[in-house]
Amino acid sequence: MINLIIASTSTLWGEDYLEYLLPHLENHFKDCKTVLFIPYARPGGISHEEYTNRVHLAFSKINITVRGIHEFENPAEAIEKAEGIFTGGGNTFLLVYELYKKEIMTVLATTLKKGTPYLGTSAGSNICGLTMQTTNDMPIVYPPSFKTLGLIPFNLNPHYIDALLQSKYMGETRETRISEFHQFNSIPVLGLREGSWLEINGDNIILKGSRSARLFRKDQTPQELVSETNLSQIDFLN
Amino acid sequence: MINLIIASTSTLWGEDYLEYLLPHLENHFKDCKTVLFIPYARPGGISHEEYTNRVHLAFSKINITVRGIHEFENPAEAIEKAEGIFTGGGNTFLLVYELYKKEIMTVLATTLKKGTPYLGTSAGSNICGLTMQTTNDMPIVYPPSFKTLGLIPFNLNPHYIDALLQSKYMGETRETRISEFHQFNSIPVLGLREGSWLEINGDNIILKGSRSARLFRKDQTPQELVSETNLSQIDFLN
Repeated sequence: MINLIIASTSTLWGEDYLEYLLPHLENHFKDCKTVLFIPYARPGGISHEEYTNRVHLAFSKINITVRGIHEFENPAEAIEKAEGIFTGGGNTFLLVYELYKKEIMTVLATTLKKGTPYLGTSAGSNICGLTMQTTNDMPIVYPPSFKTLGLIPFNLNPHYIDALLQSKYMGETRETRISEFHQFNSIPVLGLREGSWLEINGDNIILKGSRSARLFRKDQTPQELVSETNLSQIDFLN
Repeated sequence: MINLIIASTSTLWGEDYLEYLLPHLENHFKDCKTVLFIPYARPGGISHEEYTNRVHLAFSKINITVRGIHEFENPAEAIEKAEGIFTGGGNTFLLVYELYKKEIMTVLATTLKKGTPYLGTSAGSNICGLTMQTTNDMPIVYPPSFKTLGLIPFNLNPHYIDALLQSKYMGETRETRISEFHQFNSIPVLGLREGSWLEINGDNIILKGSRSARLFRKDQTPQELVSETNLSQIDFLN
């Protein structure tokens, strides 16, 4: 039974890394002594090792050891054998590029569909959707495809942010960008505000955290979903 | 002799479309009765016709007629024969996708290198760089390549915006995104704030408008360039 936590962000303003999620991760990864970390989206300037160490420090608070996938000779095997998996944030183009280059996009999807508990934050959440096309990231590398894991029947926009009505900045708002995506694609998009996450168990997709999320569907008015909404009850085919 | 105006944005807050640029465009396009408009980046929800009409309305104030490239049977020929060319903003992924699909990326570069006067705003500016990899846009379509016109020896980041130090938003700042680009690429990037533009005549690349621009180079401290700086005097190979 598929078992995912898909979070908008790893870190809330003024808090430690993963702090707001730890109480939930303790239960989510309760059967895991070790979690496999995928650091490929790594934020600028830090190595896979440094990024993994940061994650290890956070997970040590709930008595879980973290090992980076870069430490394994065979990353596909590491995924298949993992007790739990976490993909951290950074740049989604880079993450998708690396998953394809190392030929582990498919094995990751297959493994997670079998039920290995997974945590994604930011870029690590983006890849759970059908495509990475609603990322906010800069295209710093050219991936061979925008298709991603397809673990949920929609796309995500993590770090979703509402337009500042007073802003004099003339770049597109997030809502405008997603509406432009829908000029060319029919995949629904969930704008997940910082502090929100999805808990996915089998067929249930529950919105968690204190804030609402914004659901965008082609040719429809965007819809605010309150916390604890079960998204699996929304007909994503319409 | 190459002859370009490359602007961060088409529209300043509270102004009409192209209003702040019109006095400069009057001189830039002084030998043109007609300008060819490339609407392919078209912002969400409007047709090529509607977008072209908006541009025509603005250019009519300086007695120039605008024709959309979509009106021509042979877009490559339309580019080669144009008196002047303007590519408007919207989504850079879409613009680059269309330029490749219609097989006019190369002819556009060749024509502009021969001296046809050109205006680019936002996405239409982005494509003047070496690659589109420092766009702010969402990857709503998958272009066959990120390579662009290469009319200048660097990339652009239009709508460049400084970090709001007070912000509680945890997404990456623009400067962080560009620094991540430089983890994987050595192409310099010019962050062009709204209201700034480049005037490129032959070898000269002059920064115009009242604001400074921010130049990012791999492994170097970013540099503020004041208005009227000639960027051609900066050694882009170092």
